[in-house]
Amino acid sequence: MPASPIRKLVPYAEAAKKKGRTVYHLNIGQPDIKTPEVVMDRLKHIERTVIEYSNSEGYLSYREGLVDYYSKNNIHLSVGDVMITTGGSEALVFAFQTCFNAGDEVIIPEPFYANYNGFAVTAGINVVPVTASIEDGFALPPIEEFEKRITPRTKGILICNPGNPTGYLYKREELERLRELVIKNDLWLFADEVYREFCYDGATPFSVLNLEGIENNVVLIDSVSKRYSMCGARIGAMISRNAQVMAAALKFGQARLSPPTLGQIAGEAALATPQSYFDEVIEEYVGRRDILVDGLNRIPGVICPKPSGAFYCIAQLPIDDADKFCQWMLEDFAHENQTVMMAPATGFYASQGVGTNQVRLAYVLNKASLENAVKCLEVALEQYPGRVEVTEELSANR
Amino acid sequence: MPASPIRKLVPYAEAAKKKGRTVYHLNIGQPDIKTPEVVMDRLKHIERTVIEYSNSEGYLSYREGLVDYYSKNNIHLSVGDVMITTGGSEALVFAFQTCFNAGDEVIIPEPFYANYNGFAVTAGINVVPVTASIEDGFALPPIEEFEKRITPRTKGILICNPGNPTGYLYKREELERLRELVIKNDLWLFADEVYREFCYDGATPFSVLNLEGIENNVVLIDSVSKRYSMCGARIGAMISRNAQVMAAALKFGQARLSPPTLGQIAGEAALATPQSYFDEVIEEYVGRRDILVDGLNRIPGVICPKPSGAFYCIAQLPIDDADKFCQWMLEDFAHENQTVMMAPATGFYASQGVGTNQVRLAYVLNKASLENAVKCLEVALEQYPGRVEVTEELSANR
Repeated sequence: MPASPIRKLVPYAEAAKKKGRTVYHLNIGQPDIKTPEVVMDRLKHIERTVIEYSNSEGYLSYREGLVDYYSKNNIHLSVGDVMITTGGSEALVFAFQTCFNAGDEVIIPEPFYANYNGFAVTAGINVVPVTASIEDGFALPPIEEFEKRITPRTKGILICNPGNPTGYLYKREELERLRELVIKNDLWLFADEVYREFCYDGATPFSVLNLEGIENNVVLIDSVSKRYSMCGARIGAMISRNAQVMAAALKFGQARLSPPTLGQIAGEAALATPQSYFDEVIEEYVGRRDILVDGLNRIPGVICPKPSGAFYCIAQLPIDDADKFCQWMLEDFAHENQTVMMAPATGFYASQGVGTNQVRLAYVLNKASLENAVKCLEVALEQYPGRVEVTEELSANR
Repeated sequence: MPASPIRKLVPYAEAAKKKGRTVYHLNIGQPDIKTPEVVMDRLKHIERTVIEYSNSEGYLSYREGLVDYYSKNNIHLSVGDVMITTGGSEALVFAFQTCFNAGDEVIIPEPFYANYNGFAVTAGINVVPVTASIEDGFALPPIEEFEKRITPRTKGILICNPGNPTGYLYKREELERLRELVIKNDLWLFADEVYREFCYDGATPFSVLNLEGIENNVVLIDSVSKRYSMCGARIGAMISRNAQVMAAALKFGQARLSPPTLGQIAGEAALATPQSYFDEVIEEYVGRRDILVDGLNRIPGVICPKPSGAFYCIAQLPIDDADKFCQWMLEDFAHENQTVMMAPATGFYASQGVGTNQVRLAYVLNKASLENAVKCLEVALEQYPGRVEVTEELSANR
């Protein structure tokens, strides 16, 4: 596997810090939000004396608790539809391994979460991208664009909703269009909905599990990582109403014995997180988003669609090359001894040469840091030797 | 993946319990030993407020602690040689994915831990078994038997030492013979040494990491699961002095983000486990082993080599077929309303038709239960309709 564009930047960030510079990390998805207190309290009062294996599909009490959680989110499941996994990562690997044969193709709207590539490699399948446009705010690409890419090897579609790295929240109509496509071509529909709780401005997410008539085609990928700011618990879930899919996935689960016991204890405790926790977190993220995205759009030459969900945005910058620019920011630039680390968007596109003037920014830092980061970026774009004024031609070239 | 012989028995065990029968589970490797108190205390005093990702190779402080641990076990490493994984399972998957290409072959002495098959499937490689003999107590098969199996696709050898399911502890001379073979054919040598602490009768384990001249060929698989009776922590380690191997393995580690944070906290705390814990545990296991193995060998027709390590043994029984016998034990047999669940050994052999009259027993229950289990088995073998007197011919047929 090649090193990702973001990994290549890590030594430059370390070098900048050694010079005594403050580096604002807008490159990562590790929120600074606290894990709910009910979780930490549960760990502090752990009573068991053996940290033993759970069963391979996860603790029954936790799976039952998750059925309740989904029910409150208007998703109605039975416990057999839910398998606990080691993070959302494992859920997607199991889903791919269960539903695909080697050489099959999965269509994914790009930009997409870069690790999907690694999971596809593990399952021996090929990713076929369909490019979403920044001008449309990264809405679902036209269905004809999906249809053009369907071959006899196409077996599924994967979406992330709300999206990492775009923050775009698919509207129900968009998902209904995917539903038609799934029926017409008998495809799997995988949806990574780990950012469900992070929807803003009154928007509510619509789950693929509520699309009618494709119950046997849908596999949901979920995770506690972002919801409760506990990425390190490594607890996710693979969910499907297709009993054959769940039975096959369990065999992969048995091969790895069990998901982490301590993480499951934390995950089960987290189900009792009060609504006030989410209200506060969402208010915080909306404030951060507004500072970052509004700030970015005020910088001449920058375009950044305002996301309705998750805590990422993709911005187009007036630059020659985002890989070079991000490295330059760390290696050669500082404003009041501060700089910003961002993720070049090329890592989120499977198509070559697309998104080369885009970056992904995560608004996982506090508001004061975000204000400083925006200021840094503004100054940097004035000084960057590779600055390019965005023309219509360049814009169409993305 | 086909269902393993042991999984097929699970419904019969459940049915037996529904009839009110006591089922002694000698089929599993989940010890009933308590996790060290230092671990549970550490969790109860957890101070962090966010369960965040660790870095992909695991917490530095934990890796440094492990270097100390190995040093005390006469294995001298630097911190770059150690990567934390999600259980020993992930360590072996990463090792295979790092060192092999699809279609490569790995030679494994059988009987071997059945999940090795699943990890080989994940890595797209083929397992080539070389059969160890119960008459030799499952010692390393003659090197000529390995040599016969070497093809241009043979890229490595995997051993488990002390062994699951045999309990056999390889002598240094046996490992030196493997060393010669590794040098002669430029092979990888993978060793699963997760039972290092469980060596009996004064025997000390010799690590493959101390074989001279093959430092770049050796990859160690380790885990906290059995050592500290914390299988559910899902924490292991992949260890190699080959820097290229570790760099490549880290890429797989980055794709899955990080090993479990809570498990790492538990694992690091466990490093302070006092020697008295192990002394007590080993005394307990020796007592259990003697009750089980000596008891088995007193039953007419039963042969069970006495293991020097781990907490398993393989017994040959005077029966037609272990799958049928194990099912019959659960479905049709009870002695004083008790019966025994065992693992048919066929699941541990890759060769077809080998080990059909053998079972694996784990001595992970208390002594009183083991005594009852041996009595059950003795009565069962008297009553079993498929009893076969072991003849020389049958014995040679194993």
